[in-house]
Amino acid sequence: MTPYERLEQKFARLATLNEAAAMLGWDAAAMMPPGGAQARGEQMATLAGLSHELLTAPDITEDLAAATPPENPWAEQNLALMYEAHTRATALPRDLVEAASRANSTCETIWRTARKASDFAAVRPALEEVFNLTRQSAQILGAALNLSPYDALMTQYQRGITASDVTPIFADYESFLKKALPQAEELQSQREHETLPPGPYATETQEALCRQLSAAAGLNYASARLDRSAHPFCGGTSTDIRITTRYDEADPLSAITGVLHETGHALYEQHLPAAWRRQPVGEAAGMATHESQSLIIEMQAVRSDAFLAHLAPLLTSAFNKPITQGALKRRLRHVERSCIRVEADELTYPAHVLLRFRLEQALLSGDLPIADLPAAWNDSLQNLLGITPPDDAHGCLQDIHWYDGAIGYFPSYTLGAMAAAQLFAAARKAIPALDAHLATGDFAPLTNWLAQHIHTNASRFGFNELLLAATGEKLNPAAFQMHLTERYLK
Amino acid sequence: MTPYERLEQKFARLATLNEAAAMLGWDAAAMMPPGGAQARGEQMATLAGLSHELLTAPDITEDLAAATPPENPWAEQNLALMYEAHTRATALPRDLVEAASRANSTCETIWRTARKASDFAAVRPALEEVFNLTRQSAQILGAALNLSPYDALMTQYQRGITASDVTPIFADYESFLKKALPQAEELQSQREHETLPPGPYATETQEALCRQLSAAAGLNYASARLDRSAHPFCGGTSTDIRITTRYDEADPLSAITGVLHETGHALYEQHLPAAWRRQPVGEAAGMATHESQSLIIEMQAVRSDAFLAHLAPLLTSAFNKPITQGALKRRLRHVERSCIRVEADELTYPAHVLLRFRLEQALLSGDLPIADLPAAWNDSLQNLLGITPPDDAHGCLQDIHWYDGAIGYFPSYTLGAMAAAQLFAAARKAIPALDAHLATGDFAPLTNWLAQHIHTNASRFGFNELLLAATGEKLNPAAFQMHLTERYLK
Repeated sequence: MTPYERLEQKFARLATLNEAAAMLGWDAAAMMPPGGAQARGEQMATLAGLSHELLTAPDITEDLAAATPPENPWAEQNLALMYEAHTRATALPRDLVEAASRANSTCETIWRTARKASDFAAVRPALEEVFNLTRQSAQILGAALNLSPYDALMTQYQRGITASDVTPIFADYESFLKKALPQAEELQSQREHETLPPGPYATETQEALCRQLSAAAGLNYASARLDRSAHPFCGGTSTDIRITTRYDEADPLSAITGVLHETGHALYEQHLPAAWRRQPVGEAAGMATHESQSLIIEMQAVRSDAFLAHLAPLLTSAFNKPITQGALKRRLRHVERSCIRVEADELTYPAHVLLRFRLEQALLSGDLPIADLPAAWNDSLQNLLGITPPDDAHGCLQDIHWYDGAIGYFPSYTLGAMAAAQLFAAARKAIPALDAHLATGDFAPLTNWLAQHIHTNASRFGFNELLLAATGEKLNPAAFQMHLTERYLK
Repeated sequence: MTPYERLEQKFARLATLNEAAAMLGWDAAAMMPPGGAQARGEQMATLAGLSHELLTAPDITEDLAAATPPENPWAEQNLALMYEAHTRATALPRDLVEAASRANSTCETIWRTARKASDFAAVRPALEEVFNLTRQSAQILGAALNLSPYDALMTQYQRGITASDVTPIFADYESFLKKALPQAEELQSQREHETLPPGPYATETQEALCRQLSAAAGLNYASARLDRSAHPFCGGTSTDIRITTRYDEADPLSAITGVLHETGHALYEQHLPAAWRRQPVGEAAGMATHESQSLIIEMQAVRSDAFLAHLAPLLTSAFNKPITQGALKRRLRHVERSCIRVEADELTYPAHVLLRFRLEQALLSGDLPIADLPAAWNDSLQNLLGITPPDDAHGCLQDIHWYDGAIGYFPSYTLGAMAAAQLFAAARKAIPALDAHLATGDFAPLTNWLAQHIHTNASRFGFNELLLAATGEKLNPAAFQMHLTERYLK
């Protein structure tokens, strides 16, 4: 066996172990009784520890030094990704990793209380410790990978795009929003206010619809489940997808659009190339790419005029209540300046990301002291959306991300939204009858196109390369602005 | 840290890894979509491989050689069990383990088809290979553990009782059965034939009753779940019990008694001492002991006159059908000579085990050639129960056990049934009002007694020592015969 072949075997074993952890993670969210929580934490920590030991074992270091891949671009990329994973796992001193893990966990626990009490001062020292240790890690990783500290963090969520690529794209969006938002609000106020009939919308009916619509969108339930959890997600593994959602009997659209969002993630996983299963190059290309696949279903396809025309009679018949396309449009395309990111519509959502992207860079570099975060947050939101949070619970305390050590993650949401618009425009060009298909509930032409241009490429390419191959250009924010203009400004 | 303390840490890690595997095993049976099967097999194999590597690592060998436990009988027993587990894991050459694993898996696959076709000849060569390799393993393990080859196998399922202890006990039961069975049949034929009303018995109602009754029996659902699977079992871990069952709308008693059986297993796990969690001495004492805990609930308590008097009006009201104590007695205490072990009543069940106990010893020693198994089986059943299987599917092909390499397991069923009767008699003596409690559906006096005398002792003692401490004597088959006499011969 060559060193490269040995590496393939060892990374397959590592991936199999990580699959086990993924299944236990799903179980913890969707099935586990409360009494199981402590033991589950220990099981997950043991699996993570074993996974880290396998990845940093001396035999892997030796094989990486000796390996030359077969002449095949997939194998070449696979070896490069193995090398990167190994570098990330070995670059950081064990003491620092453990200190950071403890700091993140402590800070997250304090944050849960601090958010409820809207008491930023209570969590400030813990957050300072998180940023201090993350800064040290980012510097070491950046040196090892030849990246800036912030890019060393950002690329662990999405390869192939850096902060310097993102900065002008976000600035461009800011200018667009300044003009677009008041216009969208003005137009919205002039439109007819069709409303959905009042609930209850029975959970069982919602669940049956979610199954029916996700299956119609291409989810293969012979290799997937749909269950319930407090926070919806798509977990499991490519041949055993576990989607979760929650049901609100007052509002059927939150579960339906949520499940279709997760279905976008699931289709990506189900279409990954079996030949490269359990290899680094066989994984999905990153968080922003993944988000583009969920949002192209949820925001582009499902909220299109064509699909909503199909959905309205379906809901009318399932719930035995009159539900019009107009009411769906009003409910699913309502623009509103909000302090809370997760409640934001697709037009204003990027403002929340932009704010966080700028602030987390300043916090990481040290340019912005943690103590100044609440004021900087409020100024920034005022500047972007013209509103000010009533308190820090609705401001800088709202998201878990920084408080549990996830820094560099936020841009993925908006990169995903922009990529989704760009990909949808390209798919529409390639498939002239795309909207006619969606009008009959047929997602296959779209998802086949995505399978071919995105899913089956797995991690062959980084973010911008993938978009270039699929659409003919790197990330170009014009498609997203065009999409918003079409939907909100006409 | 002392070598003993290091061993405690390492065995805790091992146990945590095995907990992860237990949860994935439950998921495979109760939740997993069919598409997940192949990947799950690989996940389980990876966890088993890592578990074996951890147990046989050189540092464990060194620590075991150097360790002296603190002066504490629990720690002493813990070290002895660590030593035994390590000896079992290291005694066998890797080639033999792998050959046996392949042979078992091949034989099991062939058996599934052979059983359907009732074609013993088709599986004979594969079964010969299973016994050849098992024989080699048993000889090596026996030499390492100072046990006969058969005892080396039997003790991996239950420590503290050997074939030479069991042989006279089973012979004694055989004499008892010869007289008791015709008498029981005669009495049964004279009794009134009260019947259950015809179904359907709604699955939802059955499930709600199963929850209610298992909770009343002491199962803590804050640390447990009840789900469905093709083959009922109790899995998971002590703080996260996963019980499964299946529902038959024609027969509500199969799920109810099944869930209460599994509840007996679950209570054992939930009462294991937290102080020794994840240590060998903190585990349940073995399969026969475990079976005694399920059967004391299912056979002794649930089928008692007292509890059936409580159950009848409960079922009547839940299903809105007239269900009498007499009908429950007839349904749950019906004696019938059957060729199939899993369909047997509690009076004839031990005959099936006795047959297998004798034959598997002869097959392992080589005294009985595999080719002669079908004839020996049929002779033996004729001799014990006076019936002959119509074909090998109803004879020597009926159970998976030998065909997947599980040899030495069968005695546990009947040792459990006998121990259950002995423990129930002791509990009745200790708690004079036991039946009055059961007549109100109150299991607590019984389960508290079991917790004190069995569950919280975990693996401190082997089978006979445990019975001695709990009842004042080692396994004595008289209690089981007295129980059968009371229930079936009066």
